[in-house]
Amino acid sequence: MSEILVVGSVAYDTITTPTGKVDHALGGSANYFSLSASLYSRVRIVGVIGDDYDSTDIKILQDRNIDLKGLQKVPGSTFHWEGKYEKDMNEAITIDTQLNVFENFNPELPKEYRDSKYVFLANIDPELQHRVLDQVDNPTLVGVDTMNFWIKSKLDSLKKLLKRVDVLLVNEGEVRALSNTWNTVSAIKELTEWGPRAVVMKRGEYGFMMYSEGKYFILPAFPVEKVIDPTGAGDTFAGGFFGYLSKLNSDWNREDIKQACIHGCLMASFTVQDFSIKGLLNVDWPQVEARQNEYYKVIALRD
Amino acid sequence: MSEILVVGSVAYDTITTPTGKVDHALGGSANYFSLSASLYSRVRIVGVIGDDYDSTDIKILQDRNIDLKGLQKVPGSTFHWEGKYEKDMNEAITIDTQLNVFENFNPELPKEYRDSKYVFLANIDPELQHRVLDQVDNPTLVGVDTMNFWIKSKLDSLKKLLKRVDVLLVNEGEVRALSNTWNTVSAIKELTEWGPRAVVMKRGEYGFMMYSEGKYFILPAFPVEKVIDPTGAGDTFAGGFFGYLSKLNSDWNREDIKQACIHGCLMASFTVQDFSIKGLLNVDWPQVEARQNEYYKVIALRD
Repeated sequence: MSEILVVGSVAYDTITTPTGKVDHALGGSANYFSLSASLYSRVRIVGVIGDDYDSTDIKILQDRNIDLKGLQKVPGSTFHWEGKYEKDMNEAITIDTQLNVFENFNPELPKEYRDSKYVFLANIDPELQHRVLDQVDNPTLVGVDTMNFWIKSKLDSLKKLLKRVDVLLVNEGEVRALSNTWNTVSAIKELTEWGPRAVVMKRGEYGFMMYSEGKYFILPAFPVEKVIDPTGAGDTFAGGFFGYLSKLNSDWNREDIKQACIHGCLMASFTVQDFSIKGLLNVDWPQVEARQNEYYKVIALRD
Repeated sequence: MSEILVVGSVAYDTITTPTGKVDHALGGSANYFSLSASLYSRVRIVGVIGDDYDSTDIKILQDRNIDLKGLQKVPGSTFHWEGKYEKDMNEAITIDTQLNVFENFNPELPKEYRDSKYVFLANIDPELQHRVLDQVDNPTLVGVDTMNFWIKSKLDSLKKLLKRVDVLLVNEGEVRALSNTWNTVSAIKELTEWGPRAVVMKRGEYGFMMYSEGKYFILPAFPVEKVIDPTGAGDTFAGGFFGYLSKLNSDWNREDIKQACIHGCLMASFTVQDFSIKGLLNVDWPQVEARQNEYYKVIALRD
């Protein structure tokens, strides 16, 4: 088991879905990722919070044994995102974004974090993602997420970053924007030529498509009969993905990436079953294993 | 091997996709279905064409040993559909529909068709679907497709039909419209309570979701790097589905339906690779088997 480093946002969200609304709800990529990955290994967070951040929300992470030494607390308000989902739960509509303390975030790694073997650079400015990577000594696997805003505004920096990472984890829209190709089957193939050994495309309720070593690996999502709030599903997927890999004792290969994708799906299926991070709070390992068994039945060629 | 009966449209299409445009191109559910299913078994068509129908288009079906005794030729023009696809190849935008001879279509089965064991009622007026079913003696498996137009205008007739069929094969939009539920995972479950033993939901580039006997079966589509024209993919899927089942010597069960879904996917992947029915014309059995092997690699948990 190796420790996992994540850099990303820690936020309060206001979310409206067809099933209801929550305000001041815990969110942010680093929170979703670490709550998911902490089921597998110890997670180290690099992020920033404002002085409004609630101590009970700190405790949620502490209870999962998540290392918070890299979580800076600065004067001001915590990052706030407001979004809604209409019927189509695959796509969030952003209503408001207040960067607040996140605006001047400069990720500084505690010295103890430099030996991290698994590094996930969640969706932040690619220049900050570079800066984090500069501070890690010799990682075994580095994964990166991004978003259309950075693809448009900082493509060069992002392209340089892709030469430094092992796995790109993005959604369909990001695959299309990066490659400038609509067909995602050919697009993810093209993206592996930019540097990453594997590209993992998250497809929301449709699962994922992975491409590495000249081959596809595609599977559906775990079927969830009642989706309450899909916020954070992608970062939760990344958490399960890194969580699985961090438990390996050896270097990773394509087989491992495949299993990691499945764990990403499983963890994401818990997140969408409740608002904010609530779907993740009561998940334990036996539940993950039970869902994995159920998942294998859903995709089994023979009953 | 048993003979398969299909009732549906025979059409000339005008299709525009991001890759080009075709005019007066062979189309219609019965054509796509029978060209697909004829790789597996003998197909019997029930449909109507106008006196403008080209003899070379008849020959395409004859060359596949498709039985055309049930194809009525009447004065007037053949059904014409014009549609386009923008970037999102999952959804056709209808520009024009001219029913022509299809408007007064009254399906009459030749006597020799009454013993058909596999019956596919492609998307036509549910009252005509009933009428076809009335003329079949003792089918082994009946499948039905429909569209939002009939769901809105003839729901009662459609609901009665669902009590008479074994398998409902529809797309996501139709599942939602029928069940009045957005989440398709719970929606297809609900639809099995309306009569069919299995509901097969076609998800375009994302594959399919099947529900029967209280269990899901979900797999992705075969990854196609260059999609030229998705028209007819759903009917081609149905053709592979029925084709596979018609080759069974015994009664069918859930296992068979699962394999049939995979054959639906495989056949559909050929159709989308060219305009109109062209993607299906040169497919032979070794190609289907080769693609099946490739498909199993794409979804394999272990390399």
